[in-house]
Formats: sequence, C-alpha cells, structure tokens
Amino acid sequence: MAALRNFKPLFDRVLIEKFAAATKSKGGVLLPEASLGKVLKGTVVATGPGNVNEKGDLIPTSVKVGDKVMLPEYGGTKLNMEDKELYLYRDGDLLGVFTD
Amino acid sequence: MAALRNFKPLFDRVLIEKFAAATKSKGGVLLPEASLGKVLKGTVVATGPGNVNEKGDLIPTSVKVGDKVMLPEYGGTKLNMEDKELYLYRDGDLLGVFTD
Amino acid sequence: MAALRNFKPLFDRVLIEKFAAATKSKGGVLLPEASLGKVLKGTVVATGPGNVNEKGDLIPTSVKVGDKVMLPEYGGTKLNMEDKELYLYRDGDLLGVFTD
Amino acid sequence: MAALRNFKPLFDRVLIEKFAAATKSKGGVLLPEASLGKVLKGTVVATGPGNVNEKGDLIPTSVKVGDKVMLPEYGGTKLNMEDKELYLYRDGDLLGVFTD
Amino acid sequence: MAALRNFKPLFDRVLIEKFAAATKSKGGVLLPEASLGKVLKGTVVATGPGNVNEKGDLIPTSVKVGDKVMLPEYGGTKLNMEDKELYLYRDGDLLGVFTD
Amino acid sequence: MAALRNFKPLFDRVLIEKFAAATKSKGGVLLPEASLGKVLKGTVVATGPGNVNEKGDLIPTSVKVGDKVMLPEYGGTKLNMEDKELYLYRDGDLLGVFTD
Amino acid sequence: MAALRNFKPLFDRVLIEKFAAATKSKGGVLLPEASLGKVLKGTVVATGPGNVNEKGDLIPTSVKVGDKVMLPEYGGTKLNMEDKELYLYRDGDLLGVFTD
Repeated sequence: MAALRNFKPLFDRVLIEKFAAATKSKGGVLLPEASLGKVLKGTVVATGPGNVNEKGDLIPTSVKVGDKVMLPEYGGTKLNMEDKELYLYRDGDLLGVFTD
Repeated sequence: MAALRNFKPLFDRVLIEKFAAATKSKGGVLLPEASLGKVLKGTVVATGPGNVNEKGDLIPTSVKVGDKVMLPEYGGTKLNMEDKELYLYRDGDLLGVFTD
Repeated sequence: MAALRNFKPLFDRVLIEKFAAATKSKGGVLLPEASLGKVLKGTVVATGPGNVNEKGDLIPTSVKVGDKVMLPEYGGTKLNMEDKELYLYRDGDLLGVFTD
Repeated sequence: MAALRNFKPLFDRVLIEKFAAATKSKGGVLLPEASLGKVLKGTVVATGPGNVNEKGDLIPTSVKVGDKVMLPEYGGTKLNMEDKELYLYRDGDLLGVFTD
Repeated sequence: MAALRNFKPLFDRVLIEKFAAATKSKGGVLLPEASLGKVLKGTVVATGPGNVNEKGDLIPTSVKVGDKVMLPEYGGTKLNMEDKELYLYRDGDLLGVFTD
Repeated sequence: MAALRNFKPLFDRVLIEKFAAATKSKGGVLLPEASLGKVLKGTVVATGPGNVNEKGDLIPTSVKVGDKVMLPEYGGTKLNMEDKELYLYRDGDLLGVFTD
Repeated sequence: MAALRNFKPLFDRVLIEKFAAATKSKGGVLLPEASLGKVLKGTVVATGPGNVNEKGDLIPTSVKVGDKVMLPEYGGTKLNMEDKELYLYRDGDLLGVFTD
C-alpha cells in the first residue's frame, strides 16, 4: 500500500489501512462471515506532524509510514478515501509495532 | 471562496465553508435527498490567531485560509454569515489537510 | 453604547450588550415575536484584566471595549445594570470579532 | 461595615457581607416578600492571602476589603459571625467590582 | 488541648479537635438535642508537613498547631484517638482562622 | 513483621500488614465477631521507589519500612503473600504515622 | 518464556505472559475449574520505550523483560500472539516486582 499522496493528518493523528480479514482458518477451511473477528492489525499510510508540548517542542508521532501496527479494539475514525476504507487513530492509542 | 473579509475567529477557532454535497452518484445518477450523507470536507475561510500556551507563547493554528480539510463527523458551530452557511471548529478537531 | 463607567469585570470576564433583535425581515415584513431568534452578536462594554497563567504572567483578554463580537449560542450570565440587560462571558467563550 | 476583626479567610477565599435587599420598588411601593430577588451585590469584609501557583509564587486575591462586588447567582458558603450573615466565596467566582 | 504527641498527619492533612457543641442558647435555655447544629469550629492539634509542588518545593500547611479554624460543612475523616473524637481535613478545605 | 524479602512495590505504592483486630473490649470482654470494626492501623512492610514528577525528579514515598500508619477507611488492594493478608496503598492515601 | 521477537509495545505499555493457573491445591488435590481464581502474576516479555514528559524527557518503563510482576485485578488488553495469550498493561498499572 503506497503512502497516501494527497492527505496529511493533523497533529498526532495516524492514518491506517487495516490488513484484510483472514477468510480461511489455518487449516484452510472457509470461515463463515460471522466468525470473522475484528481486524486489529494494519499499516500506517500517513502520519500527522505530532503534538506541540507545553514547552513548545514538537513531539513527532511514534510510528512512521509503512509501520505494521497493533490496533486497539475500540476507537478509530473510519474515512473513505481513494476508494479505500481507512482509519484515523491518535498516535497514543496504537498498541505496538510489529518489527519483523 | 474568498477569505471572509469582516470576521476574525478568536483563539484557535477556524471558520470553514463545507463543499457542496454531491447530488449525483459517480455513475451520474441523481441521488435522493435522504442518501446525501454528511459533507465532511470544506475550505478554511478564516482562522483565529491560535492559543497562548502555559509559557506565554502563541501557538498558531495548524491550517491556513484556503486549505482543504477533512472535518470530524460531529461538532462544529453553524453560523450564518454573508448569506452563507459557515461552520466554526477548533483547530485541534480538524482531522487532516488535502495536499493535492 | 459608551463603555460602562462604574463596573469592572474580574479576571477574563467580558461584559457585552447584545444587538437589538431584528423585528423586520429583510423584505421589511414585521417578524412575529416567536420567530425572533437568539441575538448572537453584541458590543463589548467592559473587560476584566485577564488571567494570570502558571508562570505568573497576566494574559489580557483578546477583545477590547467597542469590539463587535459573535457570541456562543449558550452560556453568558445576565446582569441588569444601568437599566440595561447586559451579559457576562468568559473571553475564551467568545467566537470571533467583526472587523469591518 | 468595618473589616472583620477576628477572622482571616484562608487561601483565595473572600468574605462578603451582602447589601440589604431593596424592600421598596423604585416608585416607593413596598415589595412583597416573594418578589425580593436574590441579592447579588455585597461588600468585601475580609480576604485570604491568595493561592500559591505551581512556581511557588503567591497570587493575591483580585479584590480587597471595602470593594463592592457583583456576586454569582449560585455558590457561596453562608457563615454566621458577629451576629451577621456573611458569605464566603472563592476570589475566582466573583464577577466584577463596582468602581464608582 | 495539647498537641497530639504520637501521631503525625501525612502530606497536607490537618488534625482538628472540634469545639464542644453549645448546649444552652445565649439566653441560657437548655437546647434540645435535635437543635444542636453541626460544630464547624475547632482547634488544630497536628499538621502534616505539607505537599510537594511540581517544582519539588515543599509547600507547608497554612495553619499550625493551636490555630482556631472555621471548618467546612462537609468532609473531614473522623478518627478516634486518645479517647477523643478527632477529625482529619485537607489544609485546602479549611475556610479560615480566628485571629483574636 | 520483618520487611518483605522478595517483593518490591512499584512507583508510590506501599505494602501494609494490618494490626490484628482487637477481640476483647478494654474491659476484657470477648467481642462478638460482628462488632469487630475495620482495622485501620498497620505496619509498612515494603515501599516502592516513589513517583517521578514533571521535572523528572524522583519523589520518594513519605513512609518507610517499619512505620506504623493510620489507613483510610476505603481503598487498598488485598494481596495474599507468604501466607499473609497484605494490603497495597498509594503513599498519598495514607493518613498519618504513629510516632511513639 | 523468551522475549517476544517481533513485537514492540508503544509508549509505556508492557506485554505480559501470565503464569499458568495452579490446578492443584498445596495438598496436591486437583482444583475444580470454578475455583481457579484469576492469575495475577506474570512475566514481562516486551516493554515500550516509555513516555515523554512535559519537559520532553523520555521516562523509561519501571520494569524490564524477564521481570516477574504482580498484576492488578482489572485492566489489561488480551492479545493473541505466536499462539500465546498475552496481556498488555500500562507500566503505571503494574503493582510490584518479585525480586527473588
């Protein structure tokens, strides 16, 4: 997923494209729609500049474009952009980064 | 939309004129009134000076007149000015800027 | 409306005299009482000195006597003074200033 | 009303003696008990030293003994002292000072 | 009431022994139990060291052992110590000090 | 009660072993189970290092191992350790220290 | 339990693998499923970098990989990773560290 060309989140917001939901179980069995749990992993496609703290210093976001991240179960604002379903999170709400 | 001549928002407030709602689908079909979703994009027509932080420094707004911005689904104060429907947001509530 | 002679608001409070409600429509038709919406514009007749921030610096109000301002839809404390209906707002609650 | 001799409020508290309620209308007509609105004006009879801010500086109260002040409609702790009904407010809750 | 020998409140807490409730009216008439209002005056019998502010400075309590103070109507933790009913307040909740 | 050897509370937490509940009245009469009030006194068996304030300085706990302390009526997390019932409090919630 | 290779928590989050629940009582008797209380002990398998305070300094987490910690009764986000049930806590919510 290339970085989003024409949209820049503001402040400490991070734009995420979620991984596609696994439609087959590990054994290769097709999963019924209902059992497709929430997708809680995604790729960073754009980040804001970060927040300015009380001292006036800019604290950049802790993730960068291309990072694979673990998402919280709740929160995230859904945006439809470039025919894609993207989600806007605050940097501080992201749980962690996959490093492999 | 020219910048608003005679009104200056205060503090970190930003005055927005929303894009007109798309009345036709991409295929050119006239959309029924009910299906016109919320317009969540708009143009900045005026900004306040920003907020003063605890150190006494002025932190200007992160957007400027003419920027095209993504709006949150909720919030915004509706104002009728110069026969237009304008909306006042806090700078921090704006989601992002379209950069093309 | 001359500045109020004998009353000085405290801290960041601003005393406002609201514009008179328009009793005729633009076409000159007398408006029924019920349709007189809230008056959300007014003139600053007195301001407090401002607030002292954590550093001990005085941050003056962002408006001054004579400014024409846009008021929020809610809030404001009604005071009867010098036979006038005046309203006390916090500086931070005022939406913007008319600059023409 | 002389300053209260033997009681010193603490921190940013201010002790107020309210003006007597007007029992006659401007035309001299005796007002029925029920119509005696709240008295929202009073005289400062004692003040605390003020609050210490995060830097350790003492920020004195913005009013002094003898000031005539406008009181908020709600709040204030009623104290019976020296056979008088006095009220204790926080400095920050007082609306303004009469300067004539 | 001598200072409490063997108990030291922590932080900005102040230990108070309340004045005995007046059992007779000013005219000398014995007051029925029900009419004995709350006792809102007391003597300081022990104080904590105070609180440390964000700068790391210790801000001592504003009252000292032996001070006669006005208590708020609500709050205060009742402790039974040395066969006495004592009350623990935060320094900031005390209303004022009697200075005669 | 020796200090707890193998457990170190984190931040400003303090581990307390409560005094045993008095089972006899002062006159030596055995107290019925129901009348055994809450035990609000205990001994400090372990403390955390304290909290780091906004300046980055470590503010140690105000009590140390071996102190006899007065506990608040509510709060405290019960832990079973070394076959004992211990309680974890925040340093700031402890009411005072017995100094004899 | 080796440190988790490919996942790095963000900010002050700490990833924990809980101890297995004791299935036998101390006397060796098999415990019924229902009586298996909550497991409130676990091992740190990954930590975030910590939080940046208002001064812009990074305050690292107070625990490190391999520490055995006491968990609060509530809170913690369950994550399924590498076929394991792991839990994400905030550093500040961890109660203490076992030091033997």
